[in-house]
Amino acid sequence: MSSTLGTLYTVTTFGESHCKGVGAVVDGCPPGLELTEADIQPQLTRRRPGQSDLSTPRQEADQVTIYSGTEFGRTLGTPIMLLVNNRDQRPQDYGEMSRIPRPSHADYTYQMKYGVRASSGGGRSSARETIGRVAAGAIAEKWLREQYGTEIVAWVSAVGDIEAPPADLERISRAEVDQTIIRCPDTTTAARMQDRVREVLEAKDSTGGILTCVCRNVPVGLGEPLFDKLEARLAQAMLSLPATKGFDIGSGFAGTRLRGSTHNDPFVRRGSGLGTRTNHSGGVQGGISNGEPIVFRVAFKPVATIGLAQETVDFDGEPVTLEAKGRHDPCVVPRAVPIVEAMAALVLIDLALMQRARRGA
Amino acid sequence: MSSTLGTLYTVTTFGESHCKGVGAVVDGCPPGLELTEADIQPQLTRRRPGQSDLSTPRQEADQVTIYSGTEFGRTLGTPIMLLVNNRDQRPQDYGEMSRIPRPSHADYTYQMKYGVRASSGGGRSSARETIGRVAAGAIAEKWLREQYGTEIVAWVSAVGDIEAPPADLERISRAEVDQTIIRCPDTTTAARMQDRVREVLEAKDSTGGILTCVCRNVPVGLGEPLFDKLEARLAQAMLSLPATKGFDIGSGFAGTRLRGSTHNDPFVRRGSGLGTRTNHSGGVQGGISNGEPIVFRVAFKPVATIGLAQETVDFDGEPVTLEAKGRHDPCVVPRAVPIVEAMAALVLIDLALMQRARRGA
Amino acid sequence: MSSTLGTLYTVTTFGESHCKGVGAVVDGCPPGLELTEADIQPQLTRRRPGQSDLSTPRQEADQVTIYSGTEFGRTLGTPIMLLVNNRDQRPQDYGEMSRIPRPSHADYTYQMKYGVRASSGGGRSSARETIGRVAAGAIAEKWLREQYGTEIVAWVSAVGDIEAPPADLERISRAEVDQTIIRCPDTTTAARMQDRVREVLEAKDSTGGILTCVCRNVPVGLGEPLFDKLEARLAQAMLSLPATKGFDIGSGFAGTRLRGSTHNDPFVRRGSGLGTRTNHSGGVQGGISNGEPIVFRVAFKPVATIGLAQETVDFDGEPVTLEAKGRHDPCVVPRAVPIVEAMAALVLIDLALMQRARRGA
Amino acid sequence: MSSTLGTLYTVTTFGESHCKGVGAVVDGCPPGLELTEADIQPQLTRRRPGQSDLSTPRQEADQVTIYSGTEFGRTLGTPIMLLVNNRDQRPQDYGEMSRIPRPSHADYTYQMKYGVRASSGGGRSSARETIGRVAAGAIAEKWLREQYGTEIVAWVSAVGDIEAPPADLERISRAEVDQTIIRCPDTTTAARMQDRVREVLEAKDSTGGILTCVCRNVPVGLGEPLFDKLEARLAQAMLSLPATKGFDIGSGFAGTRLRGSTHNDPFVRRGSGLGTRTNHSGGVQGGISNGEPIVFRVAFKPVATIGLAQETVDFDGEPVTLEAKGRHDPCVVPRAVPIVEAMAALVLIDLALMQRARRGA
Repeated sequence: MSSTLGTLYTVTTFGESHCKGVGAVVDGCPPGLELTEADIQPQLTRRRPGQSDLSTPRQEADQVTIYSGTEFGRTLGTPIMLLVNNRDQRPQDYGEMSRIPRPSHADYTYQMKYGVRASSGGGRSSARETIGRVAAGAIAEKWLREQYGTEIVAWVSAVGDIEAPPADLERISRAEVDQTIIRCPDTTTAARMQDRVREVLEAKDSTGGILTCVCRNVPVGLGEPLFDKLEARLAQAMLSLPATKGFDIGSGFAGTRLRGSTHNDPFVRRGSGLGTRTNHSGGVQGGISNGEPIVFRVAFKPVATIGLAQETVDFDGEPVTLEAKGRHDPCVVPRAVPIVEAMAALVLIDLALMQRARRGA
Repeated sequence: MSSTLGTLYTVTTFGESHCKGVGAVVDGCPPGLELTEADIQPQLTRRRPGQSDLSTPRQEADQVTIYSGTEFGRTLGTPIMLLVNNRDQRPQDYGEMSRIPRPSHADYTYQMKYGVRASSGGGRSSARETIGRVAAGAIAEKWLREQYGTEIVAWVSAVGDIEAPPADLERISRAEVDQTIIRCPDTTTAARMQDRVREVLEAKDSTGGILTCVCRNVPVGLGEPLFDKLEARLAQAMLSLPATKGFDIGSGFAGTRLRGSTHNDPFVRRGSGLGTRTNHSGGVQGGISNGEPIVFRVAFKPVATIGLAQETVDFDGEPVTLEAKGRHDPCVVPRAVPIVEAMAALVLIDLALMQRARRGA
Repeated sequence: MSSTLGTLYTVTTFGESHCKGVGAVVDGCPPGLELTEADIQPQLTRRRPGQSDLSTPRQEADQVTIYSGTEFGRTLGTPIMLLVNNRDQRPQDYGEMSRIPRPSHADYTYQMKYGVRASSGGGRSSARETIGRVAAGAIAEKWLREQYGTEIVAWVSAVGDIEAPPADLERISRAEVDQTIIRCPDTTTAARMQDRVREVLEAKDSTGGILTCVCRNVPVGLGEPLFDKLEARLAQAMLSLPATKGFDIGSGFAGTRLRGSTHNDPFVRRGSGLGTRTNHSGGVQGGISNGEPIVFRVAFKPVATIGLAQETVDFDGEPVTLEAKGRHDPCVVPRAVPIVEAMAALVLIDLALMQRARRGA
Repeated sequence: MSSTLGTLYTVTTFGESHCKGVGAVVDGCPPGLELTEADIQPQLTRRRPGQSDLSTPRQEADQVTIYSGTEFGRTLGTPIMLLVNNRDQRPQDYGEMSRIPRPSHADYTYQMKYGVRASSGGGRSSARETIGRVAAGAIAEKWLREQYGTEIVAWVSAVGDIEAPPADLERISRAEVDQTIIRCPDTTTAARMQDRVREVLEAKDSTGGILTCVCRNVPVGLGEPLFDKLEARLAQAMLSLPATKGFDIGSGFAGTRLRGSTHNDPFVRRGSGLGTRTNHSGGVQGGISNGEPIVFRVAFKPVATIGLAQETVDFDGEPVTLEAKGRHDPCVVPRAVPIVEAMAALVLIDLALMQRARRGA
């Protein structure tokens, strides 16, 4: 179903830019987990706009409230409703804007799909919708950490054509990622990326980028053949985010150039079980986690809203020149970091519960 | 659910290499569609092994039978069971093999997940499982063609580091793709690719590759915000295929290097509606089809089974040298062409029926 | 999924007695429906406690707010979040109560299932949870009325052993039902029922009862073989309500005593199609609506909370005498009327959208 | 989805009367369960027609074959495809029959729903469809028995107005039930029932009846609030069977006449936990099993196909007299016994796996 993700740990999000609030209902969270707003707020705060001069100056507190599903600071096992009020709750008549579908936005497709013009244009395609996901993901992440010691860390590995060197997948931490406002752990590259974003902002233009994410301490055996393979579910989760255009895992697109003799990951003894010497598989074999770090990348296109004039047509097909007013994020990737982490957590907890149903532990 | 795909047009596949048969149950196919085995067999035949000297010489007829859901050559609207018998139905004791998890195969993860050793090792991760998908996809494709004139064409756009030039997305056809046994429409590149596959085969090694797929005449409005965005569902479908490591749509990973002013697709008048001048979006905006061709790529890793000796360990962690016997496909991408087309059709029909539920036509 | 109902029109409810609020997220409501709180509030008001001297005097306004999914008084086609704040938001230490599982309540089973003691005992089994259902049902009902002229009317047909004579299924209306506080359209029987409830209340005891519900102007063709047969979905919906113990449709349990020659409903010409002379089928044949009124009954057990002393044991198995304090509804059936109507509407809209997906209109 | 039941243990059935075969795909069966056709056949044999002079003399072997999902006599954890070939595989032109919708059959509603005339009239509403359910249920039942010692026994408790005295719920067994061909454990009542069925058969008429079913040794804690309450899922499962008109659990409809002081089930110490002194709840409180026997009833209407002449109209509304030819079951309830047991097993295993996912054991 379109607004619900998951089979056992389900997340149903609601809300758009100009309604009273946005949020999510989490159903299936195991009972007895210690949980208050303080467990959720940090990732929402990493997500909110206005964190640096690289982002829109719009300040929104995005303070979350738990409406149900907990008592005395513990989950009851019942649905957890998470609500963030919107500041600007008035639907607006966008005037001229409402006559012109913004290029590479969802204004046109929403209009054609629903037959209704939302004042926010693309309705639920707004980045604001991701608030519910981040809140739901923070709960999932807490449970995974307590059960398995799972750690999920995402970072900016490319802005435009500036690529960061490979990170140390065993050690990279959120603290390290947050050292720079662009959220690239390599500080030299980070500086170049930040310059690039400021340059693009100056030019009233925008840029794309790539996020890399690692999930460590994921138990062996997660992922359901066939259609719920771990990588299939991750791909769906990531491509369900606004502005994403690609996903790959392990060796990914680059690995298609290798030969099997180089690409195969030989097994080695690791503790009481097995590990692999290399990790071209990205922690997944046959759709199932193998205990190695899960590593994947997500491609984000350049932001569609730009200040530069664009020649396009209005809904009636009449030529118009469009210039976005106000100030917009020229690059979404730093703020996408906690969102990608949340989506990874949502996929992992659901598959972990599936496996627990099968094997009983 | 792991073996079922879709919400309204659902496909449940069954079968592994050494059981009595493989196939699928299709539920939700609209009634009244003309359908016999002859509509399904061609794509199965394009999928089967032994079609050329680039593939394993194993010959399997893969003849499909419709067991239910049709009468007098028309669908009843009831579940369609599609069955292909297996030739080799005896489960085997693989002897040595069963002690050694093959590197980058699913032997180890299946063992850990299920606690049961299947004689085929990776069980359902076998390529043979895709038979049910291809059969189910052929039905979906027929309905889409009759309803909307939808055309779905996939081809091999890279083998190892050999890349084909961009194809003409408006015209490329299956006939053109099938002119070469590697299924690359550019015959010069195709020849180089074929040489490469033979060379790899000679070396007892394997290679990866990339498929590109275009879907033309897809109606505007397909794709469900949020988690059932068209690209999210395509990504899940493609990454649920064996040996896939990546998916991108439209400008994809390469598009992250562009600026918004270049990347945005300006609208133009097209017929009674709108089109876009460029198609970096790949036919999808905000998760919803915009009427432009849908274009995406799928990355396939090099085949894991190779004849070259590999140093690895057995299930007990003891060092062993593994050499695969017999002959194996050194490159899966030509046979993956009808599989990718099938998965695309399965996603599109499901989203088309969802939209029909919403808008009533 | 436990807290979500439906395939295309989905309702996810949240909330328990002592959290901040209760409500629901409706996903899949068709776009363009005129909708404000005024469309929803009347059924919530019919549901709330304290409407008469037969009910607990606890007054709760149960005022609903639409948080998302509408703009300018119309639905956007996006999720509609409906929230009713709780008055008493403090979780409580029930003291003695928390040591004693109330007989025929959910205290014991919740404790065993979740391993967590909720201050409200049975957590989500509380009648308060039905608020989200009623709100979601009111929206469904409005859409059905506008599309097909569907009318859904439930009433109290039995209290204890007092049974009302059969109602006129073609004419009975909510106005008629609401003429008496017990919500039985036969005023003579209603008076006897009301006396009975007062007598039971006086005796610190409780009574059960039966609701009958008719759905008129339901289009032919709703209901999905197999597991989503119309009567199967209605049965699930009704038995998912607190305190229900039975469901039957058409001739129901009594019809098992008839012979086929009497029970069969012969067809007759009706307008441009067919109708049936009798309606033992209750408007459903083979799981699919046939255009006749859909008629079903729901059995509600006597309320479990009573003032009379009960000999039972505490969680440790020690004998105790339990006497409920305060005042409780001695009979839930009058307040269950809008709840049963809501559940019927939720089932019908979902199946109507399913059929629209299949046939395109 | 219409032909799929369950969330974790899913059953997808296929097939109608005149296609090549009927059966089911079971997905989610835990790995390592010993399973061959011999575990499944007995319940199919109890279900098949022609077992006595009370039933149609049509002889069908209904021999099941496991096509996938097992190896060396154990489940792999992958989908299990179960197939029973049809004897009469030719779709037929029913001639006159196809012009006349049979009263209280699904011919008319199927025609209106699908817009396609199946030669079998009501298509999937045929009793033959239940073969897949019985096969899938036999597997579920085996797993439940091995895990928890669960026992499921159904029997005929009423034929027309002949009612059996209450059975001993703690002891009643399938052997006892099968002592009489009518499957009523009270032999005196059974004799009267059998006479009644022969009398009805003689009169070319038919009769309805009631089944009662008990599930013993069901662990405490099964059933998911809200919409997947144990009784809600049972009600859906039972009302999804052909010819059913009602379901109640525990005290059911009769219990609505009691007062709370009589109806409440006081707790008692039982072993290391709690039990209840009485069992008006029928083993379920708040939608969750409480460890007591689960007891429910299912109402079956009189068989719609009768030899007596019926005045009705054809599809065009023209008056006709209809007389069914051949011989038909005058009473379905004895053959429904293994079907009801199967549906109960399917509900219980799915909820057991859900609870295992939550609590990890």
